[in-house]
Amino acid sequence: MADGPQDIEDLIGLLSKLPGLGPRSARRAVLHLIKKRKQQMIPLADAMMRVGQSARECLNCGNIGTSDICKICEDDRRATGEICVVEDVADLWAMERSGVFRGRYHVLGGTLSALDAVGPEDLHIPKLIDRVTSENVTEVILALSATIDGQTTAHYIADQLGHVTVTSLAQGVPVGGELDYLDDGTITAALRARRSL
Amino acid sequence: MADGPQDIEDLIGLLSKLPGLGPRSARRAVLHLIKKRKQQMIPLADAMMRVGQSARECLNCGNIGTSDICKICEDDRRATGEICVVEDVADLWAMERSGVFRGRYHVLGGTLSALDAVGPEDLHIPKLIDRVTSENVTEVILALSATIDGQTTAHYIADQLGHVTVTSLAQGVPVGGELDYLDDGTITAALRARRSL
Repeated sequence: MADGPQDIEDLIGLLSKLPGLGPRSARRAVLHLIKKRKQQMIPLADAMMRVGQSARECLNCGNIGTSDICKICEDDRRATGEICVVEDVADLWAMERSGVFRGRYHVLGGTLSALDAVGPEDLHIPKLIDRVTSENVTEVILALSATIDGQTTAHYIADQLGHVTVTSLAQGVPVGGELDYLDDGTITAALRARRSL
Repeated sequence: MADGPQDIEDLIGLLSKLPGLGPRSARRAVLHLIKKRKQQMIPLADAMMRVGQSARECLNCGNIGTSDICKICEDDRRATGEICVVEDVADLWAMERSGVFRGRYHVLGGTLSALDAVGPEDLHIPKLIDRVTSENVTEVILALSATIDGQTTAHYIADQLGHVTVTSLAQGVPVGGELDYLDDGTITAALRARRSL
């Protein structure tokens, strides 16, 4: 017995594997939970079990939900002919939080990467090409990271989709951003894409 | 629907209440868990439910375990006549990790605090006084924080326990500590308690 009983040690071990938590913060979280076990620990365990058993990927777009087809894909009002392509579900949720995009999504599940040996067949790119045809898509918006891998992926997808409009998010100064703190690449991109006021 | 379905939102909300996690890191952790639901999420929910249902405070010392009397209090080899008084279960576990103390513990559950209106009756001080008599204790070691409240509590306990030896942890330079980074109070304490080599 290093610290507490085995059950508690096991729980700390499992919790410390979460991103953003280490052994110390996991121990702190477990002690906090044990002190509030009726109000917090049992409901949390319960909610986690429920999501663990019901969560699944949408067969159409790759979003995470509790049914085979997610709410966005089921909603006919979102069949706007626009598909926003994102790397990951976290990016989809970030787009949804902004509330500005009213079309549907497609989650790639990563980016092409020569270093990590991720090829087109490892991402959901064939499915995207299918959807462009079957859902009468007129515009594919690429909301991928502004990294080398993200941009490689964007160019690859644009090559595959010759027959529809392919756009990507604008690059420039973030809202609230100060020039002094921006990197050279962003300033260059923002200057090149300057607009008349 | 802000992000995902309600069940997932609820889980993020509950997880974000843990110390060290906020809404963003909770969302990240939940996405991570959903991706590994068989290997990580179900076992974590299971372990949490098990601990939530079995964890309890030791009726004797206040340590957290899965039985009414914790393993340390049950172990006769640890009836050394020494009781180490700590503020919190986390402190007890920290002492146990060092592995150097072979007696028993007593968890106060906090420190006296005029500002937060914590009086002696709110801590487990009467129980400590009982134990000193009933367990033939010869030395009470105060392992309390070196804060004003911690030291106030230490002095109060020492006053109540006139008939046994009351000691406290040494103050000084931490192992691996550099003088340049130490505060004045620690240097003063270390100099006053200097020892001949």
